[in-house]
Amino acid sequence: MSAPTAPSLPSFPSFPPLLDQHCHGVLRVGPGRTSFEGYLTEAHVARGCDGGQGARAPFSYFDTQLGFAVRRWCAPALGLEPHCRPESYLERRAELGTGEVTRRLLRAGGISAFLVDTGLPGPLLTPGELAEASAGEAHEIVRLERLAERAADTARDAHGFLAEVSEGIREAARTARGFKSVVAYRCGLDVEPAPPGASRVHASADRWLSERPPGGRLSDPVLERHLLWSAVRTGLPLQLHTGFGDPDLRLDHCDPLLLTDFVRATAPYGTPLVLLHCYPYHRGAGYLAAVFPHVYADFGLTLSHTGARAHAVLGELLELTPFGKLLFSTDAYGLPELYLVGAQLFREAMTRLTSEWVARGEWSRSDAESVTAMIAGGTARRLYGL
Amino acid sequence: MSAPTAPSLPSFPSFPPLLDQHCHGVLRVGPGRTSFEGYLTEAHVARGCDGGQGARAPFSYFDTQLGFAVRRWCAPALGLEPHCRPESYLERRAELGTGEVTRRLLRAGGISAFLVDTGLPGPLLTPGELAEASAGEAHEIVRLERLAERAADTARDAHGFLAEVSEGIREAARTARGFKSVVAYRCGLDVEPAPPGASRVHASADRWLSERPPGGRLSDPVLERHLLWSAVRTGLPLQLHTGFGDPDLRLDHCDPLLLTDFVRATAPYGTPLVLLHCYPYHRGAGYLAAVFPHVYADFGLTLSHTGARAHAVLGELLELTPFGKLLFSTDAYGLPELYLVGAQLFREAMTRLTSEWVARGEWSRSDAESVTAMIAGGTARRLYGL
Amino acid sequence: MSAPTAPSLPSFPSFPPLLDQHCHGVLRVGPGRTSFEGYLTEAHVARGCDGGQGARAPFSYFDTQLGFAVRRWCAPALGLEPHCRPESYLERRAELGTGEVTRRLLRAGGISAFLVDTGLPGPLLTPGELAEASAGEAHEIVRLERLAERAADTARDAHGFLAEVSEGIREAARTARGFKSVVAYRCGLDVEPAPPGASRVHASADRWLSERPPGGRLSDPVLERHLLWSAVRTGLPLQLHTGFGDPDLRLDHCDPLLLTDFVRATAPYGTPLVLLHCYPYHRGAGYLAAVFPHVYADFGLTLSHTGARAHAVLGELLELTPFGKLLFSTDAYGLPELYLVGAQLFREAMTRLTSEWVARGEWSRSDAESVTAMIAGGTARRLYGL
Repeated sequence: MSAPTAPSLPSFPSFPPLLDQHCHGVLRVGPGRTSFEGYLTEAHVARGCDGGQGARAPFSYFDTQLGFAVRRWCAPALGLEPHCRPESYLERRAELGTGEVTRRLLRAGGISAFLVDTGLPGPLLTPGELAEASAGEAHEIVRLERLAERAADTARDAHGFLAEVSEGIREAARTARGFKSVVAYRCGLDVEPAPPGASRVHASADRWLSERPPGGRLSDPVLERHLLWSAVRTGLPLQLHTGFGDPDLRLDHCDPLLLTDFVRATAPYGTPLVLLHCYPYHRGAGYLAAVFPHVYADFGLTLSHTGARAHAVLGELLELTPFGKLLFSTDAYGLPELYLVGAQLFREAMTRLTSEWVARGEWSRSDAESVTAMIAGGTARRLYGL
Repeated sequence: MSAPTAPSLPSFPSFPPLLDQHCHGVLRVGPGRTSFEGYLTEAHVARGCDGGQGARAPFSYFDTQLGFAVRRWCAPALGLEPHCRPESYLERRAELGTGEVTRRLLRAGGISAFLVDTGLPGPLLTPGELAEASAGEAHEIVRLERLAERAADTARDAHGFLAEVSEGIREAARTARGFKSVVAYRCGLDVEPAPPGASRVHASADRWLSERPPGGRLSDPVLERHLLWSAVRTGLPLQLHTGFGDPDLRLDHCDPLLLTDFVRATAPYGTPLVLLHCYPYHRGAGYLAAVFPHVYADFGLTLSHTGARAHAVLGELLELTPFGKLLFSTDAYGLPELYLVGAQLFREAMTRLTSEWVARGEWSRSDAESVTAMIAGGTARRLYGL
Repeated sequence: MSAPTAPSLPSFPSFPPLLDQHCHGVLRVGPGRTSFEGYLTEAHVARGCDGGQGARAPFSYFDTQLGFAVRRWCAPALGLEPHCRPESYLERRAELGTGEVTRRLLRAGGISAFLVDTGLPGPLLTPGELAEASAGEAHEIVRLERLAERAADTARDAHGFLAEVSEGIREAARTARGFKSVVAYRCGLDVEPAPPGASRVHASADRWLSERPPGGRLSDPVLERHLLWSAVRTGLPLQLHTGFGDPDLRLDHCDPLLLTDFVRATAPYGTPLVLLHCYPYHRGAGYLAAVFPHVYADFGLTLSHTGARAHAVLGELLELTPFGKLLFSTDAYGLPELYLVGAQLFREAMTRLTSEWVARGEWSRSDAESVTAMIAGGTARRLYGL
């Protein structure tokens, strides 16, 4: 197969290497056209359960900032013109095959290290396979809810379950680089701040295990808090989903400011709390990062989904967030396109913002370079001990 | 009377025709200077009840983004220089007379179709008269609360009232293009999501009718939900006020995200829910439109009231909102100026945003044209069956 | 000592003089390097209590928009190159001495009048000394909570305490230009709107005085409301902290929209309510200013802390806020740098926004000048009777 290079993929020659501090795996096979679109949206369509789309309003999820960004940035990496038709793009994708598409898009992304939340289901590349396909390095982030659900799958009773969770977290603290929680999805972020007492945890475990259908999700708030505090006590960075995501969550219950009392309660431990995504509450996340030394902010899927507006959103994050507290990530899941788009949009947005500030005399050039390096990966390297 | 043309009214030659999917009527006569200013603000001043302005702070509602936009865009349509003094503008207005001013401003607006919420009081042009004055077409949107209040004016009892409401909605579904609700004003948007049971509806109707002063407004939350669900069951688009408006509402109770559970509950019906205005919660509205197939977003009075900042707000709406889910409207009420200003600000903001994206290579030119056509009216034509 | 002028300090020759309608004092001595950084952040670090910064994440509060803005704007005023290293800046500062640094920075700031909230502790210049150092004028704003806490320090009983508070407010109404409340910090802004009855106030005073540790802060919600209403009845402007500040507050409890019912309840009095800071809820503050004649908005520490993004935030404030309702201030505290930075960022942001609007034909030049003059100080002069 001929492998044309990507003549029109914009490049950022002096940009520092990226460390993607929050992402998921890439599909081993596919996806086809319908399911491809499903990965361009957080809506429950195509990718699985359909949320009930009315017959009156058919439309394509390619008609979004993310869809346009995929056609702009990824088409050249597959040897096509930017902004080619979705059909041509999907045809070329099928022609090249999943493996080749994955390799090309990942390598064009210029991401040298990945922290992979391995808690999502699906036939996904492992961190090791992702590392190989991208010629980078990859490390694991352990999702607390998945760890607990796996423990529940095999536990005989609450005692055994809690022992298994405890051992799982201890083990993860040895092998993984950090933890992740989706308490935002399961309970919202307005959690009680204090760690729950042992007897209450035991009673909640008992109740949950007895009521749990096979494969049932954890959403008990006491157990969630137990997981959060168990992670905090390890001292490893704890990533927390905040802001927008799929419609399983209520966005107004995912404002990171709802975590304020938990943030206060955990401050004495110094364990880094990393607020993921944050949109549209990213200014509040920046505030938390500004006034609490152990809080960090990330933009995750925000830049990818806002596309041509990424610089505007990144600009808002760069209002209050101290520059050493902001972390690049893509939140890529399923499609290798999401790595390339997330990386390019960040490079473009960051370059555009800092170029303007330097041109106007508001920042010095060396400050712009140093801040860019921090956000691209410098801070994450230090934070996760890479 | 001499009728100078408007030499300096900026034009957008290739812009598609506009469909104003949410507006009100235009005054038959007047207004005079004091009441004119009252139509430039959502405050309760001049237009009627005065909210208690202190003697210390007199100021003109011309000194707002909307006031400046009126002087910029409407003065040329009346043969004056842009940004002429308010006094000159009002003098010229009086000189030309209401009919001529209305015709000129409406025709300069370039809106070819109007969906008119006929639920506001006042000596306003009917949809038919609006159509004639503008040389466009006009259709009706039925305001649920007004329909219920009219039914209450003549009903003998709860049974008769509910039958009349039911018949009114059935009738409206035959003759109108959609429904509108101002539940945001009456109860806030944090409504219980499920349809209320028949006996509860009956009891609430009974209580409301017995306590209602003549002409009293509907604000009973059970009856509001009954109206909403009755409209949802017709399948016609349902417009919901969200975000800012006059001080009868509490803005923090009008965040469209408060509707999330109602949105989930109505998803199986596929009935389009159209979130109006949305500001300053428009990013949350974009999220709902992104993840729920039956949700649409509109910007209504937002662009008119933010004037020189309209492009910034529209840019934010174009972050998460799928391009086929965003709808132009003016929310114009009373003044024909509000049609022209809303239309020009949208054309300018949309042109500015997309030109920049095309110039930077982020969008293709044909995509920009196609998205503009969707928002200007293409999506609304499909949605309302025009 | 040689006193080089500041060759590269950008100037705004035609800009009207500034009235800083909300600020605090300047330190009499120091600060040193560590405590200097503490004044660049709202975090509880260095300046006093440390919030528990983890060993893993050392960073400098110079690495923030405010830190960069200080190096940009203040270095030239001390005879250094813009963006010089923090070490050089602090060295030069030590070399010149506090008095000289204060004089230079204040005079470079171009602020001709200051309204000083004297309720913060610390070895600070008095309003009179600030006036002298800056060659401007200074007036006092009385902080309600401080007034009450001082009364509590010496009161024998609730009766005496309330009499002292009452007398203190009467006296302040004769000598000061307005009042300030930090109810946001003490109770959040979701206060009951109505004035509390006399017996309830008495009982709360009784309880608070009996439980209060020496020097204890006022946070009783009934007493807070009593203070607010006592101030409202004087008719003098009442400044209210809203939006971000140090981590003693919960930011989500400081949304100015939470004050809506209090705003409604106070409307008949016409007493100006001035919402301070507002970020990131400044669009909601603009809404309140737009629909309630007695509400004003200020940006306070918002522009200083957002630095290179100040124009973006100011642009958002200029969406709904009527132009005669927006007030300049710096919220400067401790460092004279904060006056210069606040003033320069405002001048730059305002000039940039209005220049663009004039260039695009959206505003006329004379309107831009007139609005600038209002915000810079014209409205505040009228409001505070200067």
